[in-house]
Amino acid sequence: MAKGRFITFEGVEGSGKSTNITWAAEYLRAEGIQVLQTHEPGRTKIGDELRTVLLRTRAERLMPMTELFLMFASRMQLLEEVIIPTLSSGTWVLCDRYVDSSIAYQGGGRELGVERVKTLVLAMGELYAEPDLTVLLDIPPSVIPDRLANRTLDRFESEETSFFERIRQTYLDLAAENPRIKVVDATQPLNGVQDQITGFLNALVAESEDV
Amino acid sequence: MAKGRFITFEGVEGSGKSTNITWAAEYLRAEGIQVLQTHEPGRTKIGDELRTVLLRTRAERLMPMTELFLMFASRMQLLEEVIIPTLSSGTWVLCDRYVDSSIAYQGGGRELGVERVKTLVLAMGELYAEPDLTVLLDIPPSVIPDRLANRTLDRFESEETSFFERIRQTYLDLAAENPRIKVVDATQPLNGVQDQITGFLNALVAESEDV
Repeated sequence: MAKGRFITFEGVEGSGKSTNITWAAEYLRAEGIQVLQTHEPGRTKIGDELRTVLLRTRAERLMPMTELFLMFASRMQLLEEVIIPTLSSGTWVLCDRYVDSSIAYQGGGRELGVERVKTLVLAMGELYAEPDLTVLLDIPPSVIPDRLANRTLDRFESEETSFFERIRQTYLDLAAENPRIKVVDATQPLNGVQDQITGFLNALVAESEDV
Repeated sequence: MAKGRFITFEGVEGSGKSTNITWAAEYLRAEGIQVLQTHEPGRTKIGDELRTVLLRTRAERLMPMTELFLMFASRMQLLEEVIIPTLSSGTWVLCDRYVDSSIAYQGGGRELGVERVKTLVLAMGELYAEPDLTVLLDIPPSVIPDRLANRTLDRFESEETSFFERIRQTYLDLAAENPRIKVVDATQPLNGVQDQITGFLNALVAESEDV
């Protein structure tokens, strides 16, 4: 059986990841493809316990390096328990956030340095699954407050504009070096965003049928 | 003010770390030194939440790479919140387990590879505090069951002898390359063990008084 394709969605809070990943999963299912939709951090029992530690606002400061290692801990559990076996069974996996989030948020946003986070990605070794496609939903940080207006903000969503500026820039730098990362202007109307994503998905579907 | 000294205690379950670190803290206090005794994983609010995730036996398998990153997450919180500020204030820190535990347990015991774990230690960068002294309490795994006879075993303590054999060998290899690591035969009577530790502590105290 052919291995499933691995597609990740990236972007800052309010960029429309949840809406678009759910839409993309439905689009692929309509094409007759088996799809598992998941997200980081969390989605395993152990990962959910870590997600709670990560997202809760609290009196103590959760240190940036603690946050970095926790993101990788949750990631490894999801990879070994869910993503790798699912891909091996031929099902496609759509994941809301993956290693690029750590590089952008902890490397760029928290200023721990992109190289330091890339070192941890290398340390994943044989358990690193390379995405076949990464959709980066790009918005300027100035539009974030409007888009989060109706949410109770978690520890990340409560950050300042400069934090999201650094994240956006790191994401765009990653996209410039990685052809798998496709930048989509997420300030355009939703059907424009989805037309572009359809193009990327169709290319991947066509490629998979050729095999 | 002079920086405090950083002393770590290492060894497998049942090697007598708790007994000897408590004894060493008392010994140093009697010498007029301010001492903080702590341990990994845990000892911060966030670290204790992670310790619970790490030590609980459960139906799901906690993946070795998850365990590795969780140990480092708990470590970074303890370092930044407690160890580094305490050392800066001139107080000595005695810590039950530190990076050598990750190298021995996850690198050796869980067979993730010593080099992989050393890469994570390098990624700690400016937040890595190098111990001035590491006391390695060495026992052959064959004596572990007797020494744990009265405990309810956690996820680590329930492992097989071969796991502890690999840990012991990795510890001894580390000691061979690092002069800061002093190997103490922990099968000898307790006062023999403590005589040896006294020698190491006295050397460090004398050195600190010279400064």
